[in-house]
Amino acid sequence: MPNKPNVLLVGAGGVGAMASFALEYSGESSVTSVLRSDYAHVVENGFKINSCDYGRGIRYRPSNVVNSIEASKQYGPFDYVVLATKCIPGVSSMIDIIAPAVSKDTAIVLIQNGIGIEDEALFKCPGNVILSGVSMIASSNVKGHIEHSDRDFLSVGYFENVNLTNEHQEKVCKRFVSMYKNDKNQCVFDENVKYSRWRKLVYNAGLNPVCALTEADVGRLEIFGGTDSIIRKAMKEVIAIAKSDGVELSEALMDFMIRSKDPVYYRPSMLVDIDKGNPLEVEVICGNPVRIAKKNGVEAPYLTLIYDLLKVVQGRIMEKRGMLIVPKERQVPK
Amino acid sequence: MPNKPNVLLVGAGGVGAMASFALEYSGESSVTSVLRSDYAHVVENGFKINSCDYGRGIRYRPSNVVNSIEASKQYGPFDYVVLATKCIPGVSSMIDIIAPAVSKDTAIVLIQNGIGIEDEALFKCPGNVILSGVSMIASSNVKGHIEHSDRDFLSVGYFENVNLTNEHQEKVCKRFVSMYKNDKNQCVFDENVKYSRWRKLVYNAGLNPVCALTEADVGRLEIFGGTDSIIRKAMKEVIAIAKSDGVELSEALMDFMIRSKDPVYYRPSMLVDIDKGNPLEVEVICGNPVRIAKKNGVEAPYLTLIYDLLKVVQGRIMEKRGMLIVPKERQVPK
Repeated sequence: MPNKPNVLLVGAGGVGAMASFALEYSGESSVTSVLRSDYAHVVENGFKINSCDYGRGIRYRPSNVVNSIEASKQYGPFDYVVLATKCIPGVSSMIDIIAPAVSKDTAIVLIQNGIGIEDEALFKCPGNVILSGVSMIASSNVKGHIEHSDRDFLSVGYFENVNLTNEHQEKVCKRFVSMYKNDKNQCVFDENVKYSRWRKLVYNAGLNPVCALTEADVGRLEIFGGTDSIIRKAMKEVIAIAKSDGVELSEALMDFMIRSKDPVYYRPSMLVDIDKGNPLEVEVICGNPVRIAKKNGVEAPYLTLIYDLLKVVQGRIMEKRGMLIVPKERQVPK
Repeated sequence: MPNKPNVLLVGAGGVGAMASFALEYSGESSVTSVLRSDYAHVVENGFKINSCDYGRGIRYRPSNVVNSIEASKQYGPFDYVVLATKCIPGVSSMIDIIAPAVSKDTAIVLIQNGIGIEDEALFKCPGNVILSGVSMIASSNVKGHIEHSDRDFLSVGYFENVNLTNEHQEKVCKRFVSMYKNDKNQCVFDENVKYSRWRKLVYNAGLNPVCALTEADVGRLEIFGGTDSIIRKAMKEVIAIAKSDGVELSEALMDFMIRSKDPVYYRPSMLVDIDKGNPLEVEVICGNPVRIAKKNGVEAPYLTLIYDLLKVVQGRIMEKRGMLIVPKERQVPK
């Protein structure tokens, strides 16, 4: 099977593990999975998956399991390198990390949240196809145990690379869609990546950070008044910024997103990161929209304050993880 | 000593315990202290006080120690009832609680944070003098052990009660000042209560809630960028709202307040409440200024969002304390 597409998958949280499973489900591609904390466990036992799409009690071990990019190279070259990690520029550059596994024909697939996430990849890999994956799954990984509770819906398009023809980028993208899609999940070719990403941001830039800041799930946020007092205002700002960026979103989306996890007391990913003490996706979810608002002269006081508050929380998290050090004696002006 | 003023002191946190000590220090008044969690310990051992004003290792037991307002009545009638509790309308009405100990000649002294805290007292006790105490102390009480680290400065005035003459109110107020003041602390008659309370709010409405929301002390807040990005904007809004309420505050106050705890990594009272899981003084510190802004047509998006976020946090704290119940099944629109 020399022509079976070869995929490197980096990041095996709830999203990454299910992407890996989907890609191998129909046998149309071979996945090498880079794991860190779950490595030994998955080598020995595989993932245990309870899935609303595929069934419960599934054992799944990717074709190859490695614990570093360096080690993955023995299974290359790769047609696709899929990044299903958090996107936290300033904390780590995933593009630099995957570079050794990227050859000139590798397409890089970013299944990540936020706006402006493609800039670094387009800049550092000017000859490669860069794909956008917008995932609407609900899935968590606790020590190799995957709980997948809400249907896998992945929309894949390409971030336009002016050095390549659109025909080529579309072909590479559609090939990925056909590998990913099966009779249990949904995967579609996304003709308008920019629209899809702004659309998802209506959810992410409002509910995600506000739940993180208040440590309330979406249900409690609503009961305690925050959905009406905060979320609708923040979402309106996202819609206005998107418009200034050339993307028209309907205001009806606001209620669609607010109701999208009914009737679950759902904890959005950024709140889960708070629970776990993980760094937050502050810049791609909050920072980039705020910068676009500023550049385009759009008033966004709510998103701006939410961003500024989250940056302080991020500092606290990074200090706790030893990623930055606060001086013992506080330095103050004389 | 039939003319020695008789004081009931409710609330023996860091502020209340030091107020009790100050009032008895020169022997010019007699204090009955109402304690709850520290009652048994203080009856037996007194408070242990380490004070920057009075010295270390002091043992102090108020003249009378009781565990309820009902029990305090045996030591009445009281010339002054001092409230040094948190002010949390909607959670508990302290005016209703102290009512049995208030007679027609009792002055009620509110040593509490916030704006608009006098409304309930003036409404429910229309014949009584209501005093305002603005305290600039730093003092904490951990199980009867008082750490008093920053000088006791108390400014006392009267909330104008139109049913009484100003001469009478001033006399009652100045008597309290003379009882409280001694050679170790500072206590002054406050000619302009409204000014003092708005002035202190420049600190309280900015640093207090933002440190609570981000769980960062004032030093970390500054290092992580929040002092410049958030606090100055919030403080400017407080100054604008104060102006709309007839109080002119200098912008130089902002830096004075920002630097006031240098060089300590200071945790403001609302952050300490978060640490302890206590209800927050949301309404008197954030809610009332926001309502005044709205009434007077002053734009205050930062204070409004901070208030709305804190209300959600308050809901979460109250749920955890069993003060409100969230339905097991989330109620959602059909």
